[in-house]
Amino acid sequence: MKLTLAEAEQIVDAAMKGGQSIGKAFSIAVVDAGGFPLLVKRSDGARPLTPSIALAKAYTAAVMERPTRMLHDWANSNPGFFAQLSTMGTHPIVATEGGVTIKRDGEILGGLGISGGTAAEDQQVCDEVLGALGYQLEFPAWAGAKQAGEANRG
Amino acid sequence: MKLTLAEAEQIVDAAMKGGQSIGKAFSIAVVDAGGFPLLVKRSDGARPLTPSIALAKAYTAAVMERPTRMLHDWANSNPGFFAQLSTMGTHPIVATEGGVTIKRDGEILGGLGISGGTAAEDQQVCDEVLGALGYQLEFPAWAGAKQAGEANRG
Amino acid sequence: MKLTLAEAEQIVDAAMKGGQSIGKAFSIAVVDAGGFPLLVKRSDGARPLTPSIALAKAYTAAVMERPTRMLHDWANSNPGFFAQLSTMGTHPIVATEGGVTIKRDGEILGGLGISGGTAAEDQQVCDEVLGALGYQLEFPAWAGAKQAGEANRG
Amino acid sequence: MKLTLAEAEQIVDAAMKGGQSIGKAFSIAVVDAGGFPLLVKRSDGARPLTPSIALAKAYTAAVMERPTRMLHDWANSNPGFFAQLSTMGTHPIVATEGGVTIKRDGEILGGLGISGGTAAEDQQVCDEVLGALGYQLEFPAWAGAKQAGEANRG
Repeated sequence: MKLTLAEAEQIVDAAMKGGQSIGKAFSIAVVDAGGFPLLVKRSDGARPLTPSIALAKAYTAAVMERPTRMLHDWANSNPGFFAQLSTMGTHPIVATEGGVTIKRDGEILGGLGISGGTAAEDQQVCDEVLGALGYQLEFPAWAGAKQAGEANRG
Repeated sequence: MKLTLAEAEQIVDAAMKGGQSIGKAFSIAVVDAGGFPLLVKRSDGARPLTPSIALAKAYTAAVMERPTRMLHDWANSNPGFFAQLSTMGTHPIVATEGGVTIKRDGEILGGLGISGGTAAEDQQVCDEVLGALGYQLEFPAWAGAKQAGEANRG
Repeated sequence: MKLTLAEAEQIVDAAMKGGQSIGKAFSIAVVDAGGFPLLVKRSDGARPLTPSIALAKAYTAAVMERPTRMLHDWANSNPGFFAQLSTMGTHPIVATEGGVTIKRDGEILGGLGISGGTAAEDQQVCDEVLGALGYQLEFPAWAGAKQAGEANRG
Repeated sequence: MKLTLAEAEQIVDAAMKGGQSIGKAFSIAVVDAGGFPLLVKRSDGARPLTPSIALAKAYTAAVMERPTRMLHDWANSNPGFFAQLSTMGTHPIVATEGGVTIKRDGEILGGLGISGGTAAEDQQVCDEVLGALGYQLEFPAWAGAKQAGEANRG
């Protein structure tokens, strides 16, 4: 099952409204399961680099199959290695708020990335929008993070 | 004067319809005068890399201030040098059909890039869409190209 | 509205005098709103890499639309992510003193970067020069920074 | 002996006038013997990428110690190898018109790069400006070029 452009439009429109409701100019990206863009949109007033940031968040959420904030522990436990992940894909692998995997019926369909608000705002709108549209927001803990930490400590 | 998201939407919608009317699944990108994305959209059925191709065309048309097809002679006359331009910007500088500078009242506002059809189709839809929306499609000849060719031949 | 070369010359000349008045050999860069150079100048005695440092500061101030020192909190709260921003543009995105956005009538026109003095000196001359020439030096707080820090600490 | 900023200003001013006299908006760069910028200036109306192009030409002319057009034969005889040179320095090594080594009393002082005119115009202004200011314009033939060609043919 593939995410359609119509579904991507629906997600981005809802996220755009979410940004407007809190007075933030968002850039928003939706990518498919392979991390390739379906839709990238920059609001008037959003900074020039925000579309690229949103895209990196969406890409990470899709190809890591986890929301970007779930990568914090891993990134913190082994920052050098984590930075090297970014050379392995098309966009940086980012550990931050505002990127959420798009999942339905247990299948990874892609990623949503938002940039332009605070970290908490970017994250909240991602969650609200995907939740309201019926996508799944439960993801298994990132088991690798702790183990990487243990290895480093060991 | 800045291109607004509403204007970018209008351009992309028209280009999307142009693709549908000829049965081609387009990816379409609009960037601002600095080459930063305003809107990137991939039709259902368009190949994964086409948004990046459309973005490179739009970027080139914006920052070189000429439609991408006007760079053919230059690229052909000194392909090694032309390839090196791509290291100087954020996206590749491409010499091909399907990227047109967005210009109004003599001012460069950004670039439109289309990927997914034949070279001729990508180009035709760019020109038709921008012409129908009142943007200017006349650009001075790229004087450097021919003479670079001559110098290389000389 | 575009920053002209004459305006860039005026800014750089004033900054150069500012450096001379405190006995520091400055490199100074001015870029347009898209981050592309208008003028880069290295004083006699300024170190070889200082023009590139000044350019990165000017670029950051232009495309992030905030003085570079306003990015400190963000960079500190998530250094890995912040470092990845540099892959998204043409020059590094730097969080340091000595880069100030060039703004007039509420519009972002570009960025000024100074390198060669202490952090405080670079910053002070940026502010004095732009203030004396009538550019605006008020920028909204970078809301994202603190909250990103909180999220990381949380 | 080092090129001073005053000397770089003198060269760039003369080149700017040369561009104006033929109605071309030039970007002009002067670098020192190590290839580091002394002065980069973009005329109003010059395209955004032209300062980077001028800088690459000046860099090449300085660190290769020959005008950039003298590298044509080498680039043509072994384009793959020539392209790899660009990974060895800070800016691309370019084989094209418009970059001339700055030499006085037999000593290499730096490089001048011009972008924005035709290849012939960029070159002519470089030569005229440096000649009028008393710099030396004689350079030994690039012996490597032929040998590279021979090696390829052999």
